[in-house]
Amino acid sequence: MRVRNRKGAAELLEQNQQIVVQNPTDFKGKWAERFGNDHPIHIEVGCGKGGFITGMAEKHPDINYIAIDMQLSVLSYALDKAIEAGLPNVQMMLVDGSQLTEYFAPGEVDLVYLNFSDPWPKTRHEKRRLTHANFLKTYQEILPSEGQVHFKTDNRGLFEYSLASMSQYGMTLQKVWLDLHKDEAFAEENVMTEYEMKFSKKGQVIYRLEAQFPKK
Amino acid sequence: MRVRNRKGAAELLEQNQQIVVQNPTDFKGKWAERFGNDHPIHIEVGCGKGGFITGMAEKHPDINYIAIDMQLSVLSYALDKAIEAGLPNVQMMLVDGSQLTEYFAPGEVDLVYLNFSDPWPKTRHEKRRLTHANFLKTYQEILPSEGQVHFKTDNRGLFEYSLASMSQYGMTLQKVWLDLHKDEAFAEENVMTEYEMKFSKKGQVIYRLEAQFPKK
Repeated sequence: MRVRNRKGAAELLEQNQQIVVQNPTDFKGKWAERFGNDHPIHIEVGCGKGGFITGMAEKHPDINYIAIDMQLSVLSYALDKAIEAGLPNVQMMLVDGSQLTEYFAPGEVDLVYLNFSDPWPKTRHEKRRLTHANFLKTYQEILPSEGQVHFKTDNRGLFEYSLASMSQYGMTLQKVWLDLHKDEAFAEENVMTEYEMKFSKKGQVIYRLEAQFPKK
Repeated sequence: MRVRNRKGAAELLEQNQQIVVQNPTDFKGKWAERFGNDHPIHIEVGCGKGGFITGMAEKHPDINYIAIDMQLSVLSYALDKAIEAGLPNVQMMLVDGSQLTEYFAPGEVDLVYLNFSDPWPKTRHEKRRLTHANFLKTYQEILPSEGQVHFKTDNRGLFEYSLASMSQYGMTLQKVWLDLHKDEAFAEENVMTEYEMKFSKKGQVIYRLEAQFPKK
């Protein structure tokens, strides 16, 4: 997601250290302490403007959510939403998704969400896609045995790539949606991202998958 | 595929025993003899009106094709095309796709094609779908180690089901297309079925996948 630089974004993050974790490596293996409970931890890698994570946190108070983005201005907008919602089960980190093993102990994260990740359509940028084998390896390390990744996107090329990439990594596709908003049964459960609302209104198809890592 | 009963279909098949194999169990392990060469054998399960198999056989004279359908009238139309094309590398069988191990020895078939298979959308008909685990098991038995299934359809529900079913069976998705006709590089290679031409003209998206069985 690209947004203009936002003035005061850094200050905003600094002023809200109860939500934005300043030194995430300190919490590796200790996230239950940070949250003050041992609820399952779900993370969103590339949280964008935070509509998804805040919506999920409202809907599932017994799950702890951590929103991750590497862009300061983007995360600051997500922070606005979290502040407004005032939820105890949302934390944020301004970090790179490739370094997740520095912030989480093996098996500490229960579920990884990827939503409308940057498609990086050029082949030479393949390694930047969040469903590239290198990233999958990172998710696998911080998830338990048979942990899952839930991914949605409107980008056909990225979804095609991800189905093959995950499968070739050894993940099993538990379920696939090729037009998510046609699934009325899932509509109630689905929390839309800002992107998703915008592109769905334009008639764009939304893809979704749930994929599972093999037994450790 | 549903077509009206065709008068004289049975007679047509009987009169063309050089193309329509009357006693396919006799050729189990002996298809090279039937074709008179040891070229790779590719089969299409549910060949419909035969546009695909005839087109492929014209394009690839060094591959032997066997078209399979369980409906007499449907196969008779496929036969019309094969007779007209007069190709030495096309054979046909009026049999059920679930009995393939009766007609082929282990590893005797090099590739399985499924094109626009009946979607059987009702859950209680799941076992009839040609990508159900029971069928996949049959394909695996007649294919070599790491053999492939190539599948295309315009049916979203069937494609969603098939991605998950194949993955859960242990197959690896080598490549996935979610809008096949947008892939200009594949257009030259693609042989369209009768269905595919019709539905594509209506603006319907065509899905395709190439999936591989694990090592035996």
